[in-house]
Amino acid sequence: MEKIRIGIVGYGNIGRGVEQAAARNEDMELRAVFTRRAPETVAIKTDGAVVKHFDDMASMKDEIDVMVLCGGSATDLPVIGLKVAADFNTIDSFDTHAKIPEYFANVDKAAKSGGHVSIISVGWDPGMFSLNRLYAESILVQGSTYTFWGKGVSQGHSDAIRRIDGVKNAIQYTVPVEEAVSRVRSGSGPELTTRDKHLRECYVVAKEGADRAAIERAIKTMPNYFDEYNTTVTFVTEEELKENHSKMPHGGFVIRSGETGCEGNKHVIEYSLKLDSNPEFTASVLICYARAAYRLSKAGDCGAKSVFDIAPGLLSQKTAGELRSQLL
Amino acid sequence: MEKIRIGIVGYGNIGRGVEQAAARNEDMELRAVFTRRAPETVAIKTDGAVVKHFDDMASMKDEIDVMVLCGGSATDLPVIGLKVAADFNTIDSFDTHAKIPEYFANVDKAAKSGGHVSIISVGWDPGMFSLNRLYAESILVQGSTYTFWGKGVSQGHSDAIRRIDGVKNAIQYTVPVEEAVSRVRSGSGPELTTRDKHLRECYVVAKEGADRAAIERAIKTMPNYFDEYNTTVTFVTEEELKENHSKMPHGGFVIRSGETGCEGNKHVIEYSLKLDSNPEFTASVLICYARAAYRLSKAGDCGAKSVFDIAPGLLSQKTAGELRSQLL
Repeated sequence: MEKIRIGIVGYGNIGRGVEQAAARNEDMELRAVFTRRAPETVAIKTDGAVVKHFDDMASMKDEIDVMVLCGGSATDLPVIGLKVAADFNTIDSFDTHAKIPEYFANVDKAAKSGGHVSIISVGWDPGMFSLNRLYAESILVQGSTYTFWGKGVSQGHSDAIRRIDGVKNAIQYTVPVEEAVSRVRSGSGPELTTRDKHLRECYVVAKEGADRAAIERAIKTMPNYFDEYNTTVTFVTEEELKENHSKMPHGGFVIRSGETGCEGNKHVIEYSLKLDSNPEFTASVLICYARAAYRLSKAGDCGAKSVFDIAPGLLSQKTAGELRSQLL
Repeated sequence: MEKIRIGIVGYGNIGRGVEQAAARNEDMELRAVFTRRAPETVAIKTDGAVVKHFDDMASMKDEIDVMVLCGGSATDLPVIGLKVAADFNTIDSFDTHAKIPEYFANVDKAAKSGGHVSIISVGWDPGMFSLNRLYAESILVQGSTYTFWGKGVSQGHSDAIRRIDGVKNAIQYTVPVEEAVSRVRSGSGPELTTRDKHLRECYVVAKEGADRAAIERAIKTMPNYFDEYNTTVTFVTEEELKENHSKMPHGGFVIRSGETGCEGNKHVIEYSLKLDSNPEFTASVLICYARAAYRLSKAGDCGAKSVFDIAPGLLSQKTAGELRSQLL
């Protein structure tokens, strides 16, 4: 079998997850990991794959079918994403929702300049949750969609706490409010405020001699991040933080309730994820969309795409005939 | 706005649901209902739409963009489906799983002969459940998928009871076993027998003087339908059956659990439906796939498709740009 040759750009949590996901797909083979660090300092787990510097990507133009971009959305992807999209098919998990239209337009231009396919904003949100919002609202046109996240670590909120004076380390969990989820599931279509939907649980390591009351106040009143939520702050030691809060679970729910017919029959559609490892799951979604990018590119397509543009059958190792007989 | 002109073939529960669903989509307009009965005996609810006989379809070739086929899979679709597919874009909910490959091939030939698009096996199972099996197994390659149905009425099983000597009327509910659903949700990947997964609840109206014990025995031992399940039989009056068991709720769950990474991190993906009206929900799925068929046909595509072949964005009234900025 001819394998899909994968490159990874950026070897953090997601990059390592993509390496594992490629190994779990028989039709894939990891060829190279590209890093900003000195390549000899980066140890990967895949025999036969090489580690190279970002600047050496072009040298592997003919040896990689799809590059999976594992950089951050704030500064990495808007620069590196565009550069790589001009030379390779790419997949990324760009997740700055407000900037998606602009990013899409720029990637589209870059991808078309080189005749490649780039699928942006792949993962679970944006990604699988987006797909489920779309499917559910297309079916139940009159209704309400709710997205709940968690219980899981929010990197952005954890970072915001770490920037507070006197804080040594911190982890923040976003937690869906069970009562709100139950009301939504009942199909009653409730109006819910930000505070109604999620709690924020913070585990904080204070520096020696720091004013804990001041830290707690600074967290709970922080605009945008915490002030609109019910927030709990628990001080822990560095050891407790490592032992109890170093995993990266996440998950959540997309629920739509709506009405059909002339008698107002009600329906509830729910999609939920319960993930032991947020980055590994995201990586697994990225890698199956890499298969779709490869196939679209082979078929002569090019330009930027999102998950909304990808026919589901392109994601599977199975043929169209196998899918119809086994899964339809 | 130019509207998508819909035709309905067959005016039973699903056909009536499609009429309502079309009315709930601003970009759609019902033009005609085709029936095997005398058209003047069929009263529809849509002003401006006409009722015509099956034999008069060809006369409306230029006035209908998509025909939604609402006949049964056993005898209607294999005959009428092919005939209509040669002259119109079509959507159907063909659900005889074992015969899907053969039906797909025949519809493909018919649709291509006329240059039309036919999307087969649309609804929730086959349909949305199939899609979720596909997405979940493409992401979590190593894992197990479970489908549970219910609580809901199985028409096939209700019919089977009605054929028993001494039975006047009957309704059968398929009920998922809660303990089995919980075990699957835990991510433990249990092995489950047919009996472990579903119960069958039967509500039976006996004819006067009928041997109830014999009826109960006949049901519980019926091969394929009941013998592999735990089955309860409750005798009720015709009035009780009408009052308590004339609605058509349904639903179910598709759950996949699987592993990623090298430490065996576990993940659970769940899709669930809770439906007040099985036919109205099915109809709502059919009508959004009619939009996709219309768009694909306009773009010059033709032949048979399944939900696996349809890019999700084609289902929505929103433009690709609106979808990216609002739902991604």
